[in-house]
Amino acid sequence: MASVPIAGGRFIIIGGGSLVGSATAAELLDAGAAEVRLFDNFSMGAESAVAHLKDNPRLRIIRGDVMRMGDLLQAMEGMDGALLLAAYMTLNMDRDPWGGLDVNIRGVQNALEAAVTRGVKKVVFASSNATYGYGPGIKGDLVEATPFFSEGAPPAAIIYGATKIIGEQLCRTYTQKRGLPHVVLRYSTVYGERQHHRAANALYIIETLEKLKKGEPPEIFGDGSETKHFVYVGDLARANRMAFESAASNVAVNCSGPTPVTTKELVALVTDLAGGGPAPTFVGDTPGKVRLTSGGAFRIAHEKAYEAIGWKPQVDMREGLGRLIAWLQGNEPTH
Amino acid sequence: MASVPIAGGRFIIIGGGSLVGSATAAELLDAGAAEVRLFDNFSMGAESAVAHLKDNPRLRIIRGDVMRMGDLLQAMEGMDGALLLAAYMTLNMDRDPWGGLDVNIRGVQNALEAAVTRGVKKVVFASSNATYGYGPGIKGDLVEATPFFSEGAPPAAIIYGATKIIGEQLCRTYTQKRGLPHVVLRYSTVYGERQHHRAANALYIIETLEKLKKGEPPEIFGDGSETKHFVYVGDLARANRMAFESAASNVAVNCSGPTPVTTKELVALVTDLAGGGPAPTFVGDTPGKVRLTSGGAFRIAHEKAYEAIGWKPQVDMREGLGRLIAWLQGNEPTH
Repeated sequence: MASVPIAGGRFIIIGGGSLVGSATAAELLDAGAAEVRLFDNFSMGAESAVAHLKDNPRLRIIRGDVMRMGDLLQAMEGMDGALLLAAYMTLNMDRDPWGGLDVNIRGVQNALEAAVTRGVKKVVFASSNATYGYGPGIKGDLVEATPFFSEGAPPAAIIYGATKIIGEQLCRTYTQKRGLPHVVLRYSTVYGERQHHRAANALYIIETLEKLKKGEPPEIFGDGSETKHFVYVGDLARANRMAFESAASNVAVNCSGPTPVTTKELVALVTDLAGGGPAPTFVGDTPGKVRLTSGGAFRIAHEKAYEAIGWKPQVDMREGLGRLIAWLQGNEPTH
Repeated sequence: MASVPIAGGRFIIIGGGSLVGSATAAELLDAGAAEVRLFDNFSMGAESAVAHLKDNPRLRIIRGDVMRMGDLLQAMEGMDGALLLAAYMTLNMDRDPWGGLDVNIRGVQNALEAAVTRGVKKVVFASSNATYGYGPGIKGDLVEATPFFSEGAPPAAIIYGATKIIGEQLCRTYTQKRGLPHVVLRYSTVYGERQHHRAANALYIIETLEKLKKGEPPEIFGDGSETKHFVYVGDLARANRMAFESAASNVAVNCSGPTPVTTKELVALVTDLAGGGPAPTFVGDTPGKVRLTSGGAFRIAHEKAYEAIGWKPQVDMREGLGRLIAWLQGNEPTH
C-alpha cells in the first residue's frame, strides 16, 4: 500500500524553487500537509517563485544541491513523500551538458538514495513527454508505451529525453531492489502563473505576449499547423498530490491538458485574451535556436493517469492562459 | 575531410583491454599504425585479453581511468584517432548503476573533451543496437532511424541503451560545437576469440559451449524462435579501422553480421561445431537473471555502414563460431 495521505504528512520538493514546485507546495499546504520543504540551489529556481509562500509557518525553504548527498540526507530526514523536480531542460542542457547530465542523472540517483536511506514512503518523479522524443514519429496518440524517437532532433533535446528515461528507470530500480514506492508523471509542457523562460515550448506563450505588449506581430515558426500539448501548472500540482495519495506504485503516466492546440490556434488565443493585436508573421528557423518539431498532429493521451491515480486535467487553455495573463499584468516572468 | 589514414597514424583505444579493443589494436597494427595505445583501468578488461599484443613495440598499454581527466589528457597527447569503447553493458549496469552511469556518460564526455583538447583528428564511438531497445517493437528491419523501444524491458537494459543514445549525442555535440569529427558504430552483439562473460546475449554461445563440455543439454529460453543478430569481432575491428579511414563524419551506422539467427539455430550450430552433444532443453525465465526480449524476427540492417564507410560483414556465424571454439580449446573465456 503506497498511499501517503497529505493531511498531517511531511513532504519535500527537490527543485522546489520552480513553477511546478511552488504550485505543488501551495497544493500540499492547502490539503493540510504538516510540513513542506522546498529544496533548491536557486541556480535556476528564483527566490521570487516562492516568495508568496515564505510566510507560511509550515513551509521551509532549504538551500541545497542535488549533487551533494549531505544536503539531501539532511533535508530528507522525517519526510513522508519526496517530489523530484530538479532538472535541466533542453535549452539549459544545450548550454551546459555537464551540469545537466549531473543534475538529471546523478542528482536523481542521489535523491533516490537519500530517500530510501531516510525511510521516505513514496517518491513522485517528474518526467516528461520528452521521453517520446521528436521528429516525424511524433503523431497520433502518444501513449505510455510509445517509443523514443530521436532521428533528426537536436542533440540537447535527445539528451534531455534520454536523461528522463534514465531517471524513470532509476525509480523502477529503487522500487524493485530497495522497496521505495514511486510514481512517474510524464508532464507535457507546463504553463501558468510564475511562468519562466526555460522551456522551449512554453516560450511560445511568453514570446507571443511580449511581442503583443510591444505592439509587434507575434511570430509563428513554419505554417502554424504544428501541434503543442500544454498542461496548466495547477493541474500538475493536483497530479503530484494525487500521485502521493493514490495506492499506485511502479507506474508511469502522462499528464497533459484537456486538448492539444496548433501554434496558430495558440497565438490567436493569446492575442484574443491579451485584448487583440497585430496578426502573426510566419517565420523560418532561427539559426542556433533549439527548436522541437513533430511529425504532425498529435495528442498526449492522459487516460492512464486517471486509471492509475484518478487524475484528469481540469483547466483548458483559455482559462489557464487567462490566469497567466492576469498574473503577468502584475509581474515579470522569472528566468 | 575527416579521413585519418592508418599507416603511420597514432591511435588510442579507450577501454582497450577488451574483446573489441584487442582485435582492433591488432587490425590497426597490421595496417601499419605507428602507435596504438590501449587505455584501460582493467576493472573489467583483462590483462590476458591483450597479453598476445604486449611484445609489439608499437603497442603501449596505459593503465588509466575515464573518470580521471588527467589520465585522459596525458594519454591522448599526440593521437590522431581515438576509439571510445569503455562502457558498462547491461549486466554490469544492473549490478552497479552508479559506476555504469559514470563511465558511460561522464566517461564519454571526459574522453571527448580530452580528444578535442589534444587535437585528435577523429573519434570513433562504439554504440550499440541497444539504442533500439527491447520488447514487442523490435521486429523487421532495424535501421538507423528506428526509435528506442523500452516498454516492459528491465531497467538496466533501458538505462544501458539510453546511455548509448546520450554518448552518440555527445559526439554530435562535439562535432557541431567543437569541430571534432566522429563516426558512431552501433555494434550488434559481438562474439569471437577472447570472448568474455559480460554480454547478456553473447553469453548464449559461451553457456551453450560450457553445457556441452560437461555433457549436459544446452538451455534455450522460450521456444527458441527468438532472433539474435551477432557480429564477429574481426569484422568489427575492420569496421573501426574503416571508420577512421573514411571521410565520413557526424553519422551513426549499424554494424551487424551477415544474417541473424534464431536461438534454436544458434544452439544447433554450436552443438554441431563442438562435435555434437545432447539435444537442448527448453526452459522458462530464471528469476533475477536479466533477459532481453524482442517482438519477433528482426534483422539489424547494415547497408548504411557500406554507404558511409564502405564496410560490410565478411564472417558468417559458422566460420566465426568455428574460430571461437578453436580458440576456446586452448583458453578460458575472460571475465
